[in-house]
Amino acid sequence: MNTRPEAPPPLSGLRIVEIGHFIAAPFATRILGDLGAEIIKIEPPDGDPVRGWGAQSNGASLWWSVHGRNKRSVAVDLKSPEGVEAVGRIIARSDALIENQRPGGLARLGFDRKRLQELRPGLVVAHVSGYGQTGPLRDRAAFGVIGEAIGGLRHLTDHAPGTTNLPPPRVGISIGDSVAGLYAAIGVLAGLLRRDGRTGSGGAEDGDINTVDVALTEAVLSLTEGIVTEYGALGLVRQPVGARIASAAPTSAYPSADGRWVIVAANSDLLFQRLTALIGREDLAVRPELQTNAGRLKHVDELDEAISAWSRRFDAGRLTELLAKADIPSTLIYTAAEIADDPQFRARGMVREVSDPLHGDLLHPGIVPHFPDSPGTIRCTGPEVGQDTAAVLAEIAGYSQDEIKLLYQKGVIA
Amino acid sequence: MNTRPEAPPPLSGLRIVEIGHFIAAPFATRILGDLGAEIIKIEPPDGDPVRGWGAQSNGASLWWSVHGRNKRSVAVDLKSPEGVEAVGRIIARSDALIENQRPGGLARLGFDRKRLQELRPGLVVAHVSGYGQTGPLRDRAAFGVIGEAIGGLRHLTDHAPGTTNLPPPRVGISIGDSVAGLYAAIGVLAGLLRRDGRTGSGGAEDGDINTVDVALTEAVLSLTEGIVTEYGALGLVRQPVGARIASAAPTSAYPSADGRWVIVAANSDLLFQRLTALIGREDLAVRPELQTNAGRLKHVDELDEAISAWSRRFDAGRLTELLAKADIPSTLIYTAAEIADDPQFRARGMVREVSDPLHGDLLHPGIVPHFPDSPGTIRCTGPEVGQDTAAVLAEIAGYSQDEIKLLYQKGVIA
Repeated sequence: MNTRPEAPPPLSGLRIVEIGHFIAAPFATRILGDLGAEIIKIEPPDGDPVRGWGAQSNGASLWWSVHGRNKRSVAVDLKSPEGVEAVGRIIARSDALIENQRPGGLARLGFDRKRLQELRPGLVVAHVSGYGQTGPLRDRAAFGVIGEAIGGLRHLTDHAPGTTNLPPPRVGISIGDSVAGLYAAIGVLAGLLRRDGRTGSGGAEDGDINTVDVALTEAVLSLTEGIVTEYGALGLVRQPVGARIASAAPTSAYPSADGRWVIVAANSDLLFQRLTALIGREDLAVRPELQTNAGRLKHVDELDEAISAWSRRFDAGRLTELLAKADIPSTLIYTAAEIADDPQFRARGMVREVSDPLHGDLLHPGIVPHFPDSPGTIRCTGPEVGQDTAAVLAEIAGYSQDEIKLLYQKGVIA
Repeated sequence: MNTRPEAPPPLSGLRIVEIGHFIAAPFATRILGDLGAEIIKIEPPDGDPVRGWGAQSNGASLWWSVHGRNKRSVAVDLKSPEGVEAVGRIIARSDALIENQRPGGLARLGFDRKRLQELRPGLVVAHVSGYGQTGPLRDRAAFGVIGEAIGGLRHLTDHAPGTTNLPPPRVGISIGDSVAGLYAAIGVLAGLLRRDGRTGSGGAEDGDINTVDVALTEAVLSLTEGIVTEYGALGLVRQPVGARIASAAPTSAYPSADGRWVIVAANSDLLFQRLTALIGREDLAVRPELQTNAGRLKHVDELDEAISAWSRRFDAGRLTELLAKADIPSTLIYTAAEIADDPQFRARGMVREVSDPLHGDLLHPGIVPHFPDSPGTIRCTGPEVGQDTAAVLAEIAGYSQDEIKLLYQKGVIA
């Protein structure tokens, strides 16, 4: 379809500074770096603590290889005025800044709004925090699990009330931080369009900085469908429903003989007919009260028992074959093992081999969103602390080799 | 801090066409519309089925008021050549198109890449689908619950293996679709920067369209931290850990006397000391093996029992007071009721009152990401089907009133 040579990735030519740690801000820069932006991560000389998280190999985190990829690491002591000066010079040559210090922390480091505007008129500045930069509760401790609970996600990720005494499970990945990072990425790109005068107004004309204020709680809240509206209008407090969907049946996870779970989504009249034939329960298919979704919802316990009684007779592999042959939407619930081997992920480069200087060949997840004409590459895996300090100070901040040497000697950079 | 009059929202001046349904593509356009882009939603004359989802009031969905907000609805029969012509004329005057038909569906409607490029050189086209536009499995049925299971989220959102026979709960909101929508929004904005020659290259020069290809499975996979890399390097298959965090203790959800759950994140040495003092278990604080996070992880069952025994003595309100006074990060797990009343959400406009023509005053979630200088507004709530058909055909597509009348008579538009 497209015969021109592969174009550079969509964000090449942008330079973005990250003064971040842990997950949210670094996730935003991972996504923007994957799309081709040059990312300069400012770290303290002992590095972002996230570098130690997750399973280790060769004494180093494997997650970091992914989380830090496509970034340059500049290690600077921001408690020293010379460190602040150096970072200021980098900001002056950049398009955007993403940070997740506590609210006010960036200003306390020496980069308040006025200073940022002097350094780089039109700079896009994205602040990521637990609760936002303003408001009475902005200074509360910001942990991902707390933000997810306040944003409404945790309550709804549970079995139906009364089913179990177990506490509601956490979404087993850093969902709140990641979603906040995605909103920060959206904010940065929208701010850049505005700065360039393409959209909105003001940014390009008066050179004022473009501020984006992302709260983890709010990023989560924005995904909660109609729950706030339904509560306000009807007093309805949405409750969790476990493996099912509140408004459709049958759809759930069903057990296999070999101890796995298989998702079956047979929640249309046609799919329900196919499923009852497959499991040899045509008696259900003809019962008048099960002809509609509303009726099936009322009898969902009975339906799920019938499907489970059937599913338990087969190993997961056989189950998914049978369901696929009957054209019923279904899948094994994937672990990392199935993800790594999935032919679709492999075909689209969404699981790919990458060479890491420390670890050798590794599997990485691919680049999302995918631009078929300019898919980008993983230019580097997570860098070592300060790996690019000297190069960035010379190329971008305009320091001489002697000045850089002196900053190393003073312990300002590492 | 900022004294200039409020600037227009960051994406004002952009026009984006949505040929979407259900959740993923419409969620992308909701976010872009919230930031000020003009969204034109193309729907069949009987409307997007998502309009009927969720709790109803006045015979209409409350979720739709949110999901459809800041959009104009144009109802067109795309099986008619005149309908295709009308939509083509709208696309010709737009910056981007977001769609989530099955792969190839947009081309079958008459809008293949070549035609889109003729209509609008440089157009950004975001395709959202279950598995992507290419690859051996692209045509599988794309349900949110299936994409979440294939992307690795579902397996990790569960109690630890062996804890219960219950199936792994679904994240109780449409997380896979929403995350895919966020990536589509990122792709559209990145594509627009590239089109304008600000970044990348090629787009602006040769007028080729900018294609973005977002898969639900891949959007989910991209959030899964290091699980694929850890599996590839170590054969490690990450397993769920319920309410806890695999790498830190104690942090979990604990029961209150009144049947609620409270998150306590006391997973640092200092916070653990504070918590043991608060719950009157100084004996734990001095035990040598509990001085480190690694040691606490080994004894996490014992710790969680001790904390639960204490937490069960108090109602949730009192619990969170006690924890806050002791400066231990914690929160009640919010339902929609607590969200609606939260002072921080209210102070930041993240829960706000909106007037809906059909429903009257409603609560809506706010606009994320927040631009303090140009926060935008909810210009309209979810429109009725075809509410803007005539206006858009006249203003944007250049049809005369007589031509529009004829299209209505023929049933091409509604």
